[in-house]
Amino acid sequence: MSPTALSAIIAELESSYDPAWAEPWDAVGLVCGDPAQPVRKILFAVDPVAAVGGEAVAWGADLIVTHHPLYLRGTTTVAAGTAKGALVHTLIKNDIALYTAHTNADVADPGVSDALARAVGLAGPLRPLQPSPDDPRRGLGRVGELESPMTLRDFTRQAVRGLPRTTWGLRVAGEPTRVVRTVAVSGGAGDSLLGLGAVRAADVFLTADLRHHPSAEFLQSGAFGGGPALVDAAHWATEWPWLPQAAELLASGLAAKGINVETRVSRTVTDPWTTTAQCED
Amino acid sequence: MSPTALSAIIAELESSYDPAWAEPWDAVGLVCGDPAQPVRKILFAVDPVAAVGGEAVAWGADLIVTHHPLYLRGTTTVAAGTAKGALVHTLIKNDIALYTAHTNADVADPGVSDALARAVGLAGPLRPLQPSPDDPRRGLGRVGELESPMTLRDFTRQAVRGLPRTTWGLRVAGEPTRVVRTVAVSGGAGDSLLGLGAVRAADVFLTADLRHHPSAEFLQSGAFGGGPALVDAAHWATEWPWLPQAAELLASGLAAKGINVETRVSRTVTDPWTTTAQCED
Amino acid sequence: MSPTALSAIIAELESSYDPAWAEPWDAVGLVCGDPAQPVRKILFAVDPVAAVGGEAVAWGADLIVTHHPLYLRGTTTVAAGTAKGALVHTLIKNDIALYTAHTNADVADPGVSDALARAVGLAGPLRPLQPSPDDPRRGLGRVGELESPMTLRDFTRQAVRGLPRTTWGLRVAGEPTRVVRTVAVSGGAGDSLLGLGAVRAADVFLTADLRHHPSAEFLQSGAFGGGPALVDAAHWATEWPWLPQAAELLASGLAAKGINVETRVSRTVTDPWTTTAQCED
Amino acid sequence: MSPTALSAIIAELESSYDPAWAEPWDAVGLVCGDPAQPVRKILFAVDPVAAVGGEAVAWGADLIVTHHPLYLRGTTTVAAGTAKGALVHTLIKNDIALYTAHTNADVADPGVSDALARAVGLAGPLRPLQPSPDDPRRGLGRVGELESPMTLRDFTRQAVRGLPRTTWGLRVAGEPTRVVRTVAVSGGAGDSLLGLGAVRAADVFLTADLRHHPSAEFLQSGAFGGGPALVDAAHWATEWPWLPQAAELLASGLAAKGINVETRVSRTVTDPWTTTAQCED
Amino acid sequence: MSPTALSAIIAELESSYDPAWAEPWDAVGLVCGDPAQPVRKILFAVDPVAAVGGEAVAWGADLIVTHHPLYLRGTTTVAAGTAKGALVHTLIKNDIALYTAHTNADVADPGVSDALARAVGLAGPLRPLQPSPDDPRRGLGRVGELESPMTLRDFTRQAVRGLPRTTWGLRVAGEPTRVVRTVAVSGGAGDSLLGLGAVRAADVFLTADLRHHPSAEFLQSGAFGGGPALVDAAHWATEWPWLPQAAELLASGLAAKGINVETRVSRTVTDPWTTTAQCED
Amino acid sequence: MSPTALSAIIAELESSYDPAWAEPWDAVGLVCGDPAQPVRKILFAVDPVAAVGGEAVAWGADLIVTHHPLYLRGTTTVAAGTAKGALVHTLIKNDIALYTAHTNADVADPGVSDALARAVGLAGPLRPLQPSPDDPRRGLGRVGELESPMTLRDFTRQAVRGLPRTTWGLRVAGEPTRVVRTVAVSGGAGDSLLGLGAVRAADVFLTADLRHHPSAEFLQSGAFGGGPALVDAAHWATEWPWLPQAAELLASGLAAKGINVETRVSRTVTDPWTTTAQCED
Repeated sequence: MSPTALSAIIAELESSYDPAWAEPWDAVGLVCGDPAQPVRKILFAVDPVAAVGGEAVAWGADLIVTHHPLYLRGTTTVAAGTAKGALVHTLIKNDIALYTAHTNADVADPGVSDALARAVGLAGPLRPLQPSPDDPRRGLGRVGELESPMTLRDFTRQAVRGLPRTTWGLRVAGEPTRVVRTVAVSGGAGDSLLGLGAVRAADVFLTADLRHHPSAEFLQSGAFGGGPALVDAAHWATEWPWLPQAAELLASGLAAKGINVETRVSRTVTDPWTTTAQCED
Repeated sequence: MSPTALSAIIAELESSYDPAWAEPWDAVGLVCGDPAQPVRKILFAVDPVAAVGGEAVAWGADLIVTHHPLYLRGTTTVAAGTAKGALVHTLIKNDIALYTAHTNADVADPGVSDALARAVGLAGPLRPLQPSPDDPRRGLGRVGELESPMTLRDFTRQAVRGLPRTTWGLRVAGEPTRVVRTVAVSGGAGDSLLGLGAVRAADVFLTADLRHHPSAEFLQSGAFGGGPALVDAAHWATEWPWLPQAAELLASGLAAKGINVETRVSRTVTDPWTTTAQCED
Repeated sequence: MSPTALSAIIAELESSYDPAWAEPWDAVGLVCGDPAQPVRKILFAVDPVAAVGGEAVAWGADLIVTHHPLYLRGTTTVAAGTAKGALVHTLIKNDIALYTAHTNADVADPGVSDALARAVGLAGPLRPLQPSPDDPRRGLGRVGELESPMTLRDFTRQAVRGLPRTTWGLRVAGEPTRVVRTVAVSGGAGDSLLGLGAVRAADVFLTADLRHHPSAEFLQSGAFGGGPALVDAAHWATEWPWLPQAAELLASGLAAKGINVETRVSRTVTDPWTTTAQCED
Repeated sequence: MSPTALSAIIAELESSYDPAWAEPWDAVGLVCGDPAQPVRKILFAVDPVAAVGGEAVAWGADLIVTHHPLYLRGTTTVAAGTAKGALVHTLIKNDIALYTAHTNADVADPGVSDALARAVGLAGPLRPLQPSPDDPRRGLGRVGELESPMTLRDFTRQAVRGLPRTTWGLRVAGEPTRVVRTVAVSGGAGDSLLGLGAVRAADVFLTADLRHHPSAEFLQSGAFGGGPALVDAAHWATEWPWLPQAAELLASGLAAKGINVETRVSRTVTDPWTTTAQCED
Repeated sequence: MSPTALSAIIAELESSYDPAWAEPWDAVGLVCGDPAQPVRKILFAVDPVAAVGGEAVAWGADLIVTHHPLYLRGTTTVAAGTAKGALVHTLIKNDIALYTAHTNADVADPGVSDALARAVGLAGPLRPLQPSPDDPRRGLGRVGELESPMTLRDFTRQAVRGLPRTTWGLRVAGEPTRVVRTVAVSGGAGDSLLGLGAVRAADVFLTADLRHHPSAEFLQSGAFGGGPALVDAAHWATEWPWLPQAAELLASGLAAKGINVETRVSRTVTDPWTTTAQCED
Repeated sequence: MSPTALSAIIAELESSYDPAWAEPWDAVGLVCGDPAQPVRKILFAVDPVAAVGGEAVAWGADLIVTHHPLYLRGTTTVAAGTAKGALVHTLIKNDIALYTAHTNADVADPGVSDALARAVGLAGPLRPLQPSPDDPRRGLGRVGELESPMTLRDFTRQAVRGLPRTTWGLRVAGEPTRVVRTVAVSGGAGDSLLGLGAVRAADVFLTADLRHHPSAEFLQSGAFGGGPALVDAAHWATEWPWLPQAAELLASGLAAKGINVETRVSRTVTDPWTTTAQCED
């Protein structure tokens, strides 16, 4: 059987992650490679970086699907004198295409935050934190109920076990003995969602890249008027659970059309923090 | 001897932290209180929050000097139905003035990053990372040399011991055995300084609120072309060392004019993260 | 009977003057005071100024309701070294709350221009000059018919008697013997309404703060193609008639819920002009 | 002797009122007419309106010099169906040119506010309120000293006698018995100058088109920290004194070159307010 | 029979070319002249320039109707020292009105591109290239089918014969032997339409003012993925065919109301290029 | 002798065409390729298009230097499904680097317009039409004197012979018998330079991509007040003369450092217009 063209793989990906769902400022779709080239092996990763490129070359991948764009803002050069340009040269010379599903995967159903919600232990139905105006089943973030209430301490232990390991785990703001049931999550940087009503109404909000001022102001106003505990995880770790979900969705969708591809989920940790330090006492 | 008016205290503070040095978007100076009111006791803190207000009331402070503005963006209300408005009511009813030195303290000489540099073990001369155009001795961040080179692991152990304790300590990106000598630091959120030449040229850069994308892109391009290790500390912890420095500077300046005030540095931890979680294995 | 909480008074005010009706640039609602504090005495005034604050303290008011915002543009300080900050300190120290209903009161039904229209002698039905898109009974300005036509001279005499006295009364542009029947009015500065069709179609337009260029251009084009006479009154005088209307509306609304409050309308003239001068001949 | 070309008259006018001095948003210079046409009779007026056009036709003027632009904002039509277009047609058909000196005459030395200052009784040296960066003898507004101090009441009587009569004279904010010596003036709308240090430092500021909010806020902060009385005059009346000054300057400048022209200053009152009304009591 | 007022002519013109259809940045309608003046003779031209003004004076026209605005951007002067101002003076002194129908004539049905389509040989039904949202029969450009396919060489020969002659004729990008049937046209500058799907889907696109970069990029992407040939004609020549169409439409519309006017189409060539040069070999 | 690295070639190019001289909106420098790769053969061309890429592959070029950027506006993809992306893939797979010198070559001394000026017959000294503020010998466009005056007809014949042949040659606006001596030129699109004093003062201005409105308005005002004839040439033809100049400058600069490279100037015509059409008569 002749191999499948990249364009057919893309069509299947976009049936799950429609590029029209991406934010106006986002840059999704094919970054390099030829729509007509054959594709047999597909690697999934969060970040398009040199280590992931090396993994693709070593494995003989024809396509890398990443969550993060290589060039979120437009570039006028792909010269090999920079990390990103060097990756473009490596990929083109090795006939490896690069494809991105970013904010269109965030708002998809199922999407990035569904996978995150399942990873931290939510089993029942999920609703978007910020439903898309054109289809309320899609949207940013997810909120759902734990099967039974538990303490914040127990929830964070369960969450850290469900996420891929990073050197620093989770940071938590809230009374460990507080009982939580309604859990809001959002993969990736979550500062901008702190103002949502569905976040305010939850018992705990787990997300990434929370900074001092938004978090502290949120907690101050929460201390005053009620509000959820916060859990900060590694950006990479909150998006990684989407990779096996997306790989499975693609492979099964293609299989239904009689197309077989080999998929693989990269285990390369691209969280920047490689160690931690703390006082001994 | 009659007590000193708040206006005289402010004049002394502004001889060290000239409001004209603040960024155009910043909001520094007197937030509430009457310039004519007497001041005997002054509390220093990073954040103007309820716990700090309570500490001031309990101690009988006449003035709180904070690093962070209460209202960075303008407000049209101080009604007591919000955390910030409630603090304004508490302060005015208790005759406690509130004064902010923020980006003018950041760029002062000595300023916020001088105190941070000393806290993490830099003993020799310091230069700004981004010198002010009108006076190159002032500016954002500081860079200097360790007395003798050490491994990154040893430097981070030294740094975490020098800073006030938070639940999560430091996060480090870099090979622990790498030898470092030139150290760049910047109190508070440091994402926006990653592009500076003086940061690129250092062996390690310690700052706060580093997020996934700026850090990862910085490290990728550094891995490609050389570049420093990164250390992420709590925003609050990187600015706290300035408090005793500022208190001492104010007290000694006033004493030289025959004015005696009582100063106190708040030990309230306003970093949001109260616990952490990590897998056991 | 226990006193009523400020929050209940606000709820009643907002049933007449919904904050959602205010212009996006406006700043309405509670400026200082605690929603939980008890309210027995309410003072109504056009401007939140020191004299009005003094009147409130002397009378023992718990709440001042003003038409004009204290801080239309956001402030980062309420320090007592400025007129506005000093008023905030006075109010908070005396437990007097301050609440503003501005452009939401302008467009309400009944609202500021209804009261003005009645004050200058319009007895019949009134329509907005610029109906609100979502409810055409609300909107800026009002237009209606005099019961019987009269000369412009007679109309202005009637109007000046119906408005609170200022040192300079009314300024009129138009032939005194012109007969007028359709009268357009708008409380406060009316320059920006001169282009409305409903103003052009009236026989006379009474408003405030009319400046040379807009007025003269309006009259020139009117002289050319027909158009109304103009009457310029004091900004304060055109908005004052709303105060008794609002006080009555609030008191009766609360009474219907079994809540009794004492209301008072300030007679302090806050028009800036305290005298006039004219040649003797 | 052959008549003088319009271009020569313009050259003389621009030696006093350089178009380069005008604000970037202003529109000064020749509005209609041919630079080559002969000019014998020149009419000066504040506003380019139909009544002034009629006066020019009746007198046989070849040129009208006005202070206010006909089209401050650009027009794409001069069709005769509007007041302004009709004036253009009248002027072109009658070979009457129209020339404007506006903000370049405001900042000239001598300029509009010099004439105003003399009209209200200032006899000594005058300084701009807002000196031009490139020549501090020029600039907006003027400030000077009265020969001897007098009460505000006496000053306003003197001022109203010195200005051309309007129906409403002057409006005054300030204690009539206050003694004034330093007088600031600015022809035309003066709201935007209230923040100038030279205005704050004067005993009285006379200008035009003062509205409620800027005036009231100015007086409030003045009541708090000291500040001048305000006098509001008709926009037209504050600029009219410049007309004879400009006519004389032009005629004498041309005479020095052996050119004789006939000049005339229009007495048409273009203040919009034709009557006033006040309560009888 | 008394002559017809200009306002009646305008009303008839605007029944075909509604000013509301013009782009927001456009300037259409009456430029000079009096709506009440009588009109017997009407000259149609593409450009309002001196030669056309001279033609109107010589013929005794009362009105010129042009496609291009005299002042597309607003002017603050019509002084006779510039080409445009001199034309305004000539027209007003000779009682000749000037009226413009520009982008409202472009999108009309029939409009500028209908006339162009007919001139280059399209006989069947036409559709807009960019239909107006409010009425899809109107819109920019037109596309239609040739009665029978022909080579690009034959089409361009047919087109150049159908358009008024200029010194340089047509410039063509495409293989001369390519067979074309679907023809897209747009009168005036067509760079901005190259991205339209209806242009991409045609066999040839004829328009004006095509520049190197948009044309070359369009042809590159077309060479890659298929796309039309391009034909560049003189801007003036592509809009001239509308003149007789508009003259006929106006005259017949007026005749139906019993009004007789004399119309004339100017043959003045206002394309800038008066000669060409080419190597002899 | 080992081959030279691309980085050394770039350093030599940038000694003539400093990237800092480019406009802020421009995109110059290395587009693809590795600074460390060896370079022996260098192809110069105006446009980075497929035909030029094919020429480079066929000749075995290591580097293409073009005048026009491939991506003037940033791109987020170089996928091979577009003309530009396909070129990137071809170049990277064939180890051919692409380098652009655009507005930095326009303003260089010598630069694009020097070569153009020589090509059309200017032999003496040349000055920029718009001198660079930091070095007046550099700048956009050039102006100089012909050795002896000649008619416009003779000048255009001379110019068309000096430029590379296109299908349509030159278009000329001006009286053929007009005598010209001062000649202004600017390579590439010249609309935006029509307002320059040095253009107005010339006898003829030769440039490219002149459109109807700017040209016609320029000629109208010139007809009124004097002004140059205009000559419109192909954008590509006006910039091509720079290619041999740049190739020679680079080769001689490298030779002086003992580096030998082979250069070649592409003769591929990238003007879009492949044929013309004109009426026979």
